[in-house]
Amino acid sequence: IKEADVVIYDRLVDSRIVNMIPDTAERVYVGKSRGEKVMSQKHINDLIVKSATSHKNVVRLKGGDPFIFGRGGEESSELSKAGILFEIVPGITSAIAAPAYAGIPLTHRNLASSFLVVSGDEDPSKQGSLIDWEHIAAFDGTIVILMGWHKLQEIVTSLLRYGMDPSVPVALIQWGTVPLQRTVTGSLANIIEESSKAGISPPIIIVI
Amino acid sequence: IKEADVVIYDRLVDSRIVNMIPDTAERVYVGKSRGEKVMSQKHINDLIVKSATSHKNVVRLKGGDPFIFGRGGEESSELSKAGILFEIVPGITSAIAAPAYAGIPLTHRNLASSFLVVSGDEDPSKQGSLIDWEHIAAFDGTIVILMGWHKLQEIVTSLLRYGMDPSVPVALIQWGTVPLQRTVTGSLANIIEESSKAGISPPIIIVI
Repeated sequence: IKEADVVIYDRLVDSRIVNMIPDTAERVYVGKSRGEKVMSQKHINDLIVKSATSHKNVVRLKGGDPFIFGRGGEESSELSKAGILFEIVPGITSAIAAPAYAGIPLTHRNLASSFLVVSGDEDPSKQGSLIDWEHIAAFDGTIVILMGWHKLQEIVTSLLRYGMDPSVPVALIQWGTVPLQRTVTGSLANIIEESSKAGISPPIIIVI
Repeated sequence: IKEADVVIYDRLVDSRIVNMIPDTAERVYVGKSRGEKVMSQKHINDLIVKSATSHKNVVRLKGGDPFIFGRGGEESSELSKAGILFEIVPGITSAIAAPAYAGIPLTHRNLASSFLVVSGDEDPSKQGSLIDWEHIAAFDGTIVILMGWHKLQEIVTSLLRYGMDPSVPVALIQWGTVPLQRTVTGSLANIIEESSKAGISPPIIIVI
């Protein structure tokens, strides 16, 4: 970051990291939040390739891990196609860190030898778009659902319909990994009620 | 680490990090590799609690993430029981970082909206120990198998038997996240052959 000529950064990057960008570097904010489309992914891809063609050191700065629902796959494909050298720097995904800060290990020697991470807010334009909740309901390990808040009711209903035990513990984590982080716990049967009692609101990570 | 009075560390911690431990701190190596049992987990748990009782700042230093097959769940439970305050610092798990360095995003907008991480070397003493490979074979996202090298043949055979497409791409990643990292790719049908042609050997992370 300190050697960057251009930094193209997202909404979820902490200001302390953004502040490391030198004054001499060009900063381009391409953040996206629900409902706020600053720049299309196509436009971001083009911008990255164009910047990398005209500048020496270009940093594409994201929160979390670039390859876990971070569009890093698409962006690096574009760089490959354009013949531009790049390096991927893995990060700490909120899918693991937010449960950790909430005291929830995703694996445990006596309880779970696997975990699954799924997007609860899939690209609706995707072919065969539906997540296979029946398959997920039968999963034996820990389930982490990112971006699932807006479909919490549908997710819980589906899992129960597909036979998941209503007493399975569930945690909702708001503001994962930041100092405001808070957790509401319950069971699959009562988590909707618990969440409304607690007045919890998005962004939420669901851990089952 | 720099303020530690005691650092209890594992085999997989990079020497550059171990070298950050101040000379004044007590260093306790509790590393384990396959077949080399330096110290039992029970002994490690007791040591952590005892150190935390008699010293101010105790660091339990692990490679990867402490809550992803890292025994962090068990160790923090012991601290809780003993009434000792602690903080968990999430890390970057090789399950995500090794595929990233190999150019494999675990999720991709057009290809995978979920991923699953599973231990291929479960604790055999565990009740109902068998991983449900039939369920895994039907999983729609990316599958990462850690510690599975010694059972690669059994894993591939099971997945094929349970109907997984033999043409599904598979990568074996040796020395994940360190400069020696190398990758062998193939399909579920030929990965065993490819791996023996390439002369790849453990440690291996399997990505399907």
